[in-house]
Amino acid sequence: MAAMDKILLGHGSGGKLMHALIEEYFSPAFGNKGAGDSAVVDVPSTRIAYTTDSYVVSPLFFPGGNIGDLAVCGTVNDLSVAGAEPLFLTAGFIIEEGFPLSDLKKIIASMAAAAKQAGIAIVAGDTKVVNKGKADGVFINTSGIGSLKGGISISPANILDGDSVIISGELGNHGVAILAERNGLTFDPPIKSDSRPLNSLVKAMYKATDKIRFMRDPTRGGLATTLKEVALESGLCIRIRELSLPVPLPVKGACSLLGLDPLYVANEGILVAVVGPDVADTVVSAMHKHDHGKAASVIGTVDRSAPGMVLLETAAGGSRIIDMLQGEMLPRIC
Amino acid sequence: MAAMDKILLGHGSGGKLMHALIEEYFSPAFGNKGAGDSAVVDVPSTRIAYTTDSYVVSPLFFPGGNIGDLAVCGTVNDLSVAGAEPLFLTAGFIIEEGFPLSDLKKIIASMAAAAKQAGIAIVAGDTKVVNKGKADGVFINTSGIGSLKGGISISPANILDGDSVIISGELGNHGVAILAERNGLTFDPPIKSDSRPLNSLVKAMYKATDKIRFMRDPTRGGLATTLKEVALESGLCIRIRELSLPVPLPVKGACSLLGLDPLYVANEGILVAVVGPDVADTVVSAMHKHDHGKAASVIGTVDRSAPGMVLLETAAGGSRIIDMLQGEMLPRIC
Repeated sequence: MAAMDKILLGHGSGGKLMHALIEEYFSPAFGNKGAGDSAVVDVPSTRIAYTTDSYVVSPLFFPGGNIGDLAVCGTVNDLSVAGAEPLFLTAGFIIEEGFPLSDLKKIIASMAAAAKQAGIAIVAGDTKVVNKGKADGVFINTSGIGSLKGGISISPANILDGDSVIISGELGNHGVAILAERNGLTFDPPIKSDSRPLNSLVKAMYKATDKIRFMRDPTRGGLATTLKEVALESGLCIRIRELSLPVPLPVKGACSLLGLDPLYVANEGILVAVVGPDVADTVVSAMHKHDHGKAASVIGTVDRSAPGMVLLETAAGGSRIIDMLQGEMLPRIC
Repeated sequence: MAAMDKILLGHGSGGKLMHALIEEYFSPAFGNKGAGDSAVVDVPSTRIAYTTDSYVVSPLFFPGGNIGDLAVCGTVNDLSVAGAEPLFLTAGFIIEEGFPLSDLKKIIASMAAAAKQAGIAIVAGDTKVVNKGKADGVFINTSGIGSLKGGISISPANILDGDSVIISGELGNHGVAILAERNGLTFDPPIKSDSRPLNSLVKAMYKATDKIRFMRDPTRGGLATTLKEVALESGLCIRIRELSLPVPLPVKGACSLLGLDPLYVANEGILVAVVGPDVADTVVSAMHKHDHGKAASVIGTVDRSAPGMVLLETAAGGSRIIDMLQGEMLPRIC
């Protein structure tokens, strides 16, 4: 009976084994059939945000989370930084033959918990199984839809000369936690992934102001790549102050040990916002009152001096040009 | 420069290589950024159908299609058989390091062509790259949303005693085409996958009647598994006539050679519909006028005789109980 502890090719067949998997594992966690069929859902507005992300993180379990909550939070956050209220997610699993059912159960439970925390529903799903050696444990795709209130517009085109750049929390925790786990390193204090849903933080920000021009979550490629994208897309210059960047000491130490630059390390629980200069302090104060915004701060400003460029004013008083991530520093970080 | 013909880990980094991939490959085909960000879309109704499917078909290229058009058509069809008008799709790619960029280009072109044929837009995307040996070429997830007109309801709960069961086309072509390609077999005449979008066929059916109780596309697990699901979910008995089943001669021959039962072989371009008995002929006539419904026919009826069962009236005059697919006959068929 050992085979019944593991995923078999038949679990992806569409037949009896797949139905049993759905009934025993997915339905109890997600509260619906979770099968390959369409869900019918009602959205409160006809203007919606729509996104998708696949998750291939390695290892599947890491300090602070696993691929399951990462897959839910990541897509919730994509919608949140689009200014939308996340409502519904789908979940598509690609599972390697032989994958332990006990691990699948843990991953599904984490997804359900993250969905509950974010207040969203996983309404449709799909499971495929590939032969042993043709995947790496499990890959998860989540797509998500959220409703967009009239008047809300998040675009680099909205950014104006003089705007303030805000970061909602500490840099580098997710990427360093993954890399440490991958290499069997432990730190004291431990470094945990910051993976978490940001929709309620964004809600608090909108309560404080309607002058949010732009938001993005600095995941793959880190803060540096995100800011460079924003600079290019807006045609403006972004200046950030190194001394303002909230890099926690353990992350600093680990990055120095591992030869990483925290500016390029992936984050999963923070966002960058560009807001009008007159509301920056108000927004940051509102963020400080939220559990996920306690370390929020203004890290820089926007100007017209060097269109498309990101400049880091260093602690030493110099200025460093920040480019996008080149090549790959940390593959399979999400 | 040989490396530039192939996918590198850096193509999934979020950095420069990924931006170049999006700009050179995805944007020209899909007409948008296709990046990991949310798309903002307008839907004509607040009642929408929402679905997801991952595609892991092996081989990636087969007679009649490839993983790209399959991923678009499959999700369009999931929405279509929910009674919805498919509008927007997302596409998530998981690519194995070293995958030829020329193959990726072909796959993307097929997706764009299928999207055009179906009249839908691919509005958001994501690309992840995993190390060589940790995936099998490329896996694609598509999710889709469609608008549902008020009054349209597709549910096994709608099915009534006396209803007619219709199939829209020939059985078995997709599964046999894949298996033949996998095993290096060729048939004369060649057997091609039936992968195609069914949304315009469904539109023609709704023009003919509003008495469509239920539809489903018999993909994994084939017609047998689909009908058994419907019998169980409706609590009614489905009786089909073997002599009415449109199994093309080449598929019959190939199934007999390969030891397959065409009732359990996956299809990607047909649907099963349950309609009121008074409109069955009208619907079938309307389907015959559509390119994708030329082989449509009534294959059986619904009654209360044996709740939850599917009975096949055989050519020999007997009656055979049809169950769901057990185990796995054809892994990675879609």
